[in-house]
Amino acid sequence: MLRFLTAGESHGQGLVVILEGMPAGIEVNEEELSKELSRRRKGYGRGARANIEKDDFSIVSGVLNGKTTGAPICVLIPNKDYENWKGKYVPIYAPRPGHADFPGMIKYGFEDCRPIAERASARETAARVACGYFAKKLLQKEGIKIFSWVVSIGEIEANLPPIEERMSKVDVVEKLFQLAELSEVRCPNLEDSERMKKLIDQAKEKGDTLGGIFEVAVVGVPVGLGSHVHWDRRLDARLAASIMSIPGVKGVEIGLGFQLAKLFGSEAHDPIQKPKRPTNKAGGIEGGISNGEIIFIRAAMKPIPTLANPLPSIDVRNDQPCPAHVERSDVCAVGSAAVVAEAMVALVLADALLEVKGGDRW
Amino acid sequence: MLRFLTAGESHGQGLVVILEGMPAGIEVNEEELSKELSRRRKGYGRGARANIEKDDFSIVSGVLNGKTTGAPICVLIPNKDYENWKGKYVPIYAPRPGHADFPGMIKYGFEDCRPIAERASARETAARVACGYFAKKLLQKEGIKIFSWVVSIGEIEANLPPIEERMSKVDVVEKLFQLAELSEVRCPNLEDSERMKKLIDQAKEKGDTLGGIFEVAVVGVPVGLGSHVHWDRRLDARLAASIMSIPGVKGVEIGLGFQLAKLFGSEAHDPIQKPKRPTNKAGGIEGGISNGEIIFIRAAMKPIPTLANPLPSIDVRNDQPCPAHVERSDVCAVGSAAVVAEAMVALVLADALLEVKGGDRW
Amino acid sequence: MLRFLTAGESHGQGLVVILEGMPAGIEVNEEELSKELSRRRKGYGRGARANIEKDDFSIVSGVLNGKTTGAPICVLIPNKDYENWKGKYVPIYAPRPGHADFPGMIKYGFEDCRPIAERASARETAARVACGYFAKKLLQKEGIKIFSWVVSIGEIEANLPPIEERMSKVDVVEKLFQLAELSEVRCPNLEDSERMKKLIDQAKEKGDTLGGIFEVAVVGVPVGLGSHVHWDRRLDARLAASIMSIPGVKGVEIGLGFQLAKLFGSEAHDPIQKPKRPTNKAGGIEGGISNGEIIFIRAAMKPIPTLANPLPSIDVRNDQPCPAHVERSDVCAVGSAAVVAEAMVALVLADALLEVKGGDRW
Amino acid sequence: MLRFLTAGESHGQGLVVILEGMPAGIEVNEEELSKELSRRRKGYGRGARANIEKDDFSIVSGVLNGKTTGAPICVLIPNKDYENWKGKYVPIYAPRPGHADFPGMIKYGFEDCRPIAERASARETAARVACGYFAKKLLQKEGIKIFSWVVSIGEIEANLPPIEERMSKVDVVEKLFQLAELSEVRCPNLEDSERMKKLIDQAKEKGDTLGGIFEVAVVGVPVGLGSHVHWDRRLDARLAASIMSIPGVKGVEIGLGFQLAKLFGSEAHDPIQKPKRPTNKAGGIEGGISNGEIIFIRAAMKPIPTLANPLPSIDVRNDQPCPAHVERSDVCAVGSAAVVAEAMVALVLADALLEVKGGDRW
Repeated sequence: MLRFLTAGESHGQGLVVILEGMPAGIEVNEEELSKELSRRRKGYGRGARANIEKDDFSIVSGVLNGKTTGAPICVLIPNKDYENWKGKYVPIYAPRPGHADFPGMIKYGFEDCRPIAERASARETAARVACGYFAKKLLQKEGIKIFSWVVSIGEIEANLPPIEERMSKVDVVEKLFQLAELSEVRCPNLEDSERMKKLIDQAKEKGDTLGGIFEVAVVGVPVGLGSHVHWDRRLDARLAASIMSIPGVKGVEIGLGFQLAKLFGSEAHDPIQKPKRPTNKAGGIEGGISNGEIIFIRAAMKPIPTLANPLPSIDVRNDQPCPAHVERSDVCAVGSAAVVAEAMVALVLADALLEVKGGDRW
Repeated sequence: MLRFLTAGESHGQGLVVILEGMPAGIEVNEEELSKELSRRRKGYGRGARANIEKDDFSIVSGVLNGKTTGAPICVLIPNKDYENWKGKYVPIYAPRPGHADFPGMIKYGFEDCRPIAERASARETAARVACGYFAKKLLQKEGIKIFSWVVSIGEIEANLPPIEERMSKVDVVEKLFQLAELSEVRCPNLEDSERMKKLIDQAKEKGDTLGGIFEVAVVGVPVGLGSHVHWDRRLDARLAASIMSIPGVKGVEIGLGFQLAKLFGSEAHDPIQKPKRPTNKAGGIEGGISNGEIIFIRAAMKPIPTLANPLPSIDVRNDQPCPAHVERSDVCAVGSAAVVAEAMVALVLADALLEVKGGDRW
Repeated sequence: MLRFLTAGESHGQGLVVILEGMPAGIEVNEEELSKELSRRRKGYGRGARANIEKDDFSIVSGVLNGKTTGAPICVLIPNKDYENWKGKYVPIYAPRPGHADFPGMIKYGFEDCRPIAERASARETAARVACGYFAKKLLQKEGIKIFSWVVSIGEIEANLPPIEERMSKVDVVEKLFQLAELSEVRCPNLEDSERMKKLIDQAKEKGDTLGGIFEVAVVGVPVGLGSHVHWDRRLDARLAASIMSIPGVKGVEIGLGFQLAKLFGSEAHDPIQKPKRPTNKAGGIEGGISNGEIIFIRAAMKPIPTLANPLPSIDVRNDQPCPAHVERSDVCAVGSAAVVAEAMVALVLADALLEVKGGDRW
Repeated sequence: MLRFLTAGESHGQGLVVILEGMPAGIEVNEEELSKELSRRRKGYGRGARANIEKDDFSIVSGVLNGKTTGAPICVLIPNKDYENWKGKYVPIYAPRPGHADFPGMIKYGFEDCRPIAERASARETAARVACGYFAKKLLQKEGIKIFSWVVSIGEIEANLPPIEERMSKVDVVEKLFQLAELSEVRCPNLEDSERMKKLIDQAKEKGDTLGGIFEVAVVGVPVGLGSHVHWDRRLDARLAASIMSIPGVKGVEIGLGFQLAKLFGSEAHDPIQKPKRPTNKAGGIEGGISNGEIIFIRAAMKPIPTLANPLPSIDVRNDQPCPAHVERSDVCAVGSAAVVAEAMVALVLADALLEVKGGDRW
């Protein structure tokens, strides 16, 4: 069983993750991990912070001579900005709507939202990406690969191959991924990427923010991950939790998702044929179990809740109306969320794979 | 911490659930539990089975003199049909597309799909509803109530108050629920209910099946359930898993869900105002924490995968094409799924509430 | 991962256990399970209850045609005595020292101890034994066998081969087990068994009770169960919890246990030699990992806290001194506890084995 | 629910612990934490390493302005020695009997034992002590205090007040603790401490090692921590696991432990009286629940398995006999283990307390 805990605050000393349960013998290297971290960081619409972040990390434990040892893996990502913040305390009295600020402050009994905002920062997801890197490497040994791309930013939907192809054809998936890697907004249609960037520019100008929709596709998954036998062992349930846990995500679909609700049964399912099923509307999961097809997940991310042109809020000291707190933030981070989703999916699948295959060394 | 395990097969001796972690002192009664079970069972489009199911249950443990004792609660729901099935074995050689049949058989190494089909049956959800009843009673003590209704069956979308009202107004929620309780398809628009029933009739006639979309609304939730501090403590993540674990569910949204991805930040968030926030687009959860508004969840259920007019499949003995197995089944069970969703949501919220309030006796 | 929950009260409808996580394909049969239950039940010093218990059970789910299916296994053990107790309520106002009565009543907020006593009954361990049976069958497939015997009852210590042999020689272990199976007190020395029975007679006459010490030995364990990498994955930690969780157990040792604390390092460890290590003072576990030798556990059980000649207590209604409640009970149940320990050890080892080997079907 | 993961190797960059689930508002300070770490480190019989360790740590997250925030707490303890080890690799081909070396190497598939030895090092327990500090602070807010001392080293048993007093009298407990804090071997009898030190000197001279017995007493525990309702919620089971997980511990007792097995029921239990029970043979736990008396635990630690005068082992490259690997190590660390035990007990009790009281802020 894989377990991991992350720690760290936005302006604290750094982020830390401990991943427990990895078998020994998985080859890993720092360049790859660095690249993963930078894939999350980059992106049009990300703030100046994204560049400050571009920093060191260290694999503190669990890796020896380029291979996992079976011991807990710890990655430490120091915060380069820390020295500027050390000892400073900038309270947040006007909680940002859509953020953990308001409910968090009440829950934990603080008089301002700063302690909440520090931990609720999306920067925490860097720790998840670091953690997910190790899971990806384990999956790779079994030929399982994870891809993601952005299909829409705000109202702009990318012109892409139809969803039926995106979820069923390995070559389409690989092509979309390659293109997405080239795009500053992680959108595989590079023309639409430009339109999206313009929309982001406009939003920025207005002090506004944007969300969007991304997709994750997993290729090479064997039949049999997850199980129908108990609700909490269903692969779709675990994936849904892992995706919905990404800050800003408000919707998750497996396969055709909500579209399936409108179809008749005769239209909604994927005939079983040899050597290959003709469709993959189920998104690779039937009865909570991977069925050997591409696992296909869609997720909706709401716009970032920190607006330069702030939303109405209240001053928590007197309940009087005031504009919400403004803090340096991104305008759009859908592409980053997609990379985080890859990591979360990798962790869920690696855990499911270990359950099936067991193993102390791989 | 609440834990529960369910057991039982479709044509076995019965279903069993054990719920561990309930505090002592919660008043419960068998009539209410019976009613909950019947709410799941009934529904236009449910097969003859739904009537056979109408049966006894017993609370085997954990309740004394009408109150929980703190000990594990066990509910046993015997299968009235069992005597007819005892000792019989009807193999399934043609897995049903969309069902656990195919991946399950491979995963667990069976030569036919019967052992999978028996456990993957939606009948298992009766055990969850029994379990959820106790969670609902705990929540009731804190004034938390859970409601559900169906908004679409196949292509037919009910004409209802706008979603913005459904997710933000307690009186609307209560009214919709009352109407849904009167509808054979759990749809609060009784005219549309009739249209839905006709569509179900048509599907049945063609040997086809239907899915749909349902909504769950939770009223009276205090601020502070769930937490932003760790991904797996986020209330939205936990709810997403619990809903996605319901057989047939392929999509989950919190609040406006996918719609939020299209909006600008200035349109997507709910201003903080006293005494009441004007909107609830976030669906009652910000930063993974309940914010005191109505918790609002939408879910898409695909059509039932057992078709009387079966889909193409293969005979697993020789990989030759053949029609999928046909077994007595429902045509549409969206209303039932909504009731199961209430139970799952109740279990998640009760667990989160116990985390916050603790307590051996309530 | 194996999970199980038990439910049921002493005078309720029955006991239930659900075991989740068993792979498919393990052969099981009802006679063997029946025999396991009777091994726990029998024993000199067990009350009349032990005979009343001699009853039916049913495997409600998870088994088909004599093999596990991978689905949750539920065993129901109805309480034959239930009809006599139904509707009756005999309050317990004078908590029994040494029992959960007193702290349980306060914790759960009851006005008498009956609701506590019902669940705190050692009868619950029958559900564990039923559960452990399945774990034993899984272990058997890997050639792992679990044995237990009693080494002392009260002051009477059985004359047995030295502990160094009991923990290191398979033939000694097997012989002790065979003899223990013949003994009414589970003691492998049949002469000492008679002395123990006389002591039990004396205790019974005085309205007193007895405890004792038992040992569990596991043969055929592969190297590598458990792990040193995290405290809660250590096999010794997991075994200690499982043994200490048996009602009445107040001490647990692995290998030579407390004796090891007195030795020098040069005397305390087991030299590593091929083909076989000369000693097994560590009891088969080094660094929290099984090392291929016999796993050897000792446990101390205190005397049963329900005395016919009751201990001083108070009436919880007025805090006045009074004798503790008397309820039909056993005089000595060390042999039964040893059988329960076998089950708990089996569950821990099966879980550890699944972690290493994985697997949906065995 | 408290969760924690530790990471780090003996000669790696450092140790890390993440503790998740702490409520907000617990006052903590670095001096106290430093003192806790030094309490574990010091001790007669500890090697030179203990001084090298005397080092920095940082609270990376979860604490703001001297109070916990509810966010995961991370403590990083850098390894001062790291620069000397960086890049070096000293293989261990002769596994040390009694150590994880041998089973670990096989389990994880290494060709030498170095990767195992690095993680199996007792240095890992520093991370647990850091973690336990926060649990202690939470317990302190409820008036719960944890004490420990050493009662024997090798054959030398300290002359102390009788165990019945050590486990039942708060003033005795406090006095023993104060004295133990003054002793280099953590033994409250300072004369016997000198004898123990001499024994350690002798052992050292011979290249040998020593173990011993320590006790942990917890004062101020309310009635109701843990529960009888399920085996894995019993406080004694959880404590047993936590203690047995400490490297070298081979035996655990609650209350009178093994002594209880020899007594009649009339002698073994603690009469219930107001205002105070006359004895505490049960060690503060009845039926798996704290009963308001002192929680009293005894544990046996075997001698350290790394001997300067090494035990017989084999060379894993050719299975030929050879002396076991020798590495700088301690001669005796029973006092340190006692401090680690305090931490583990604190974590178990804090978790149990949170279960009962709940709470986001304390």
